[in-house]
Amino acid sequence: MSVLTPETCRIVLVRARNPLNIGAAARAMKNFGFTDLVLVGIHPPIWEEARSAVGACDILAQVRVVPSIAEAVQDCSLVAGTTTGRRHPHETEYLTPADFIDQLGAGTSRGRTAIVFGSEKTGLNREELSHCRHRLRIPTATDAPSMNLGQAVAVCCYEFARRGTPPVVRANGGSEPASLGVMEGLVQDLTWLFQQSGFFPPSRLRVMVPKLRRTLLRLELSHQEASFFRGATQQMVQFFGRQGK
Amino acid sequence: MSVLTPETCRIVLVRARNPLNIGAAARAMKNFGFTDLVLVGIHPPIWEEARSAVGACDILAQVRVVPSIAEAVQDCSLVAGTTTGRRHPHETEYLTPADFIDQLGAGTSRGRTAIVFGSEKTGLNREELSHCRHRLRIPTATDAPSMNLGQAVAVCCYEFARRGTPPVVRANGGSEPASLGVMEGLVQDLTWLFQQSGFFPPSRLRVMVPKLRRTLLRLELSHQEASFFRGATQQMVQFFGRQGK
Repeated sequence: MSVLTPETCRIVLVRARNPLNIGAAARAMKNFGFTDLVLVGIHPPIWEEARSAVGACDILAQVRVVPSIAEAVQDCSLVAGTTTGRRHPHETEYLTPADFIDQLGAGTSRGRTAIVFGSEKTGLNREELSHCRHRLRIPTATDAPSMNLGQAVAVCCYEFARRGTPPVVRANGGSEPASLGVMEGLVQDLTWLFQQSGFFPPSRLRVMVPKLRRTLLRLELSHQEASFFRGATQQMVQFFGRQGK
Repeated sequence: MSVLTPETCRIVLVRARNPLNIGAAARAMKNFGFTDLVLVGIHPPIWEEARSAVGACDILAQVRVVPSIAEAVQDCSLVAGTTTGRRHPHETEYLTPADFIDQLGAGTSRGRTAIVFGSEKTGLNREELSHCRHRLRIPTATDAPSMNLGQAVAVCCYEFARRGTPPVVRANGGSEPASLGVMEGLVQDLTWLFQQSGFFPPSRLRVMVPKLRRTLLRLELSHQEASFFRGATQQMVQFFGRQGK
């Protein structure tokens, strides 16, 4: 059985602007058995309009609206951001939804998975993508890479729902993966330490923090490993913070 | 190679009522390299509205509008109609889009293939389905079988197009692994920091340092990643070391 099932997969829409797209995403989710929708940074009027739109389904009644992507994924152990790959073509590895499922089949994750979609106009920006361990790219034509938001959600839900992959034990001890909440705590602690010591100059924070987050997520720490390092960084923040006063 | 490629596949929309859906279908086609769209029994005002809608693409400029499904598919050698399977559950065999491709792959057809979609409200009726040799059923949930028209077109185009797509390019797969020298530097710096801050009590050093090393090596950092973190730890050791004096 796949670790990514409709029951354990969250769809996250970041800064969606068109109420019809939110409704369309919810409908596609329902078509394929997904129920967990979280909206990030949605203007209340847009959200109200989506909820009252024709075809809005029960998924919209139980949706959560949160201010930040960090909050949207904090209880997830695996986060993938969707992108056309145009903005950062050389940055990282892109997976198709099908490849993503194949890779997941090699994991032992039991936590929730989040699939994150950016706004219709701009997609996910660098900071938003830095919260995502994986990049998903639906294999669209090069002369028309950008999909309609509702259709992109439909394609991903279709692909994830129709597949079942057998569990395979991961090399690294078979331990649970770290939750994104613990990882973000690590990012925040290290940012403080790196800033404090001068390794992160204030002027470069906007570039360096997403880079740090991306690097840490790429390591795929187990819960045990992340907790160990988090214990260390908390202790250092406390100690060196007191010392600096 | 499959006989069904975006170049040889026609999308046929029968009695579509919502101009936005026609536009959305055209956009999804373009996303996946399809260009041949035929509309059957579309009211002229709806068609005009679709053509002038935001996001309408060049596919809508070359679309054909015909009065009957027979005319829409007359030059095709293979025709499949989409259905939720609710109206005629015992009538025939339903194929998923993926199964359809697999069956086609075993055929020798060289002509055009048409995929036919019914109206938003009612789908394809019995007469319309009778023009279709095959029935396609996107595997949706039983409690929400009926997809939005634009999303159904997107899912089919995605499935038909992706069979022939080249593998996604790995951008950062070739990165050098970190040398053991850099890794040991990291171990020493972190040991100093962890000890200094009280995270490693002196009495536990003999256990904790090997554990730290083992954990770090298991991460299999790339040269780039290890250098990044080593830069940070060197800076912290220097800064917090000075501060403590």
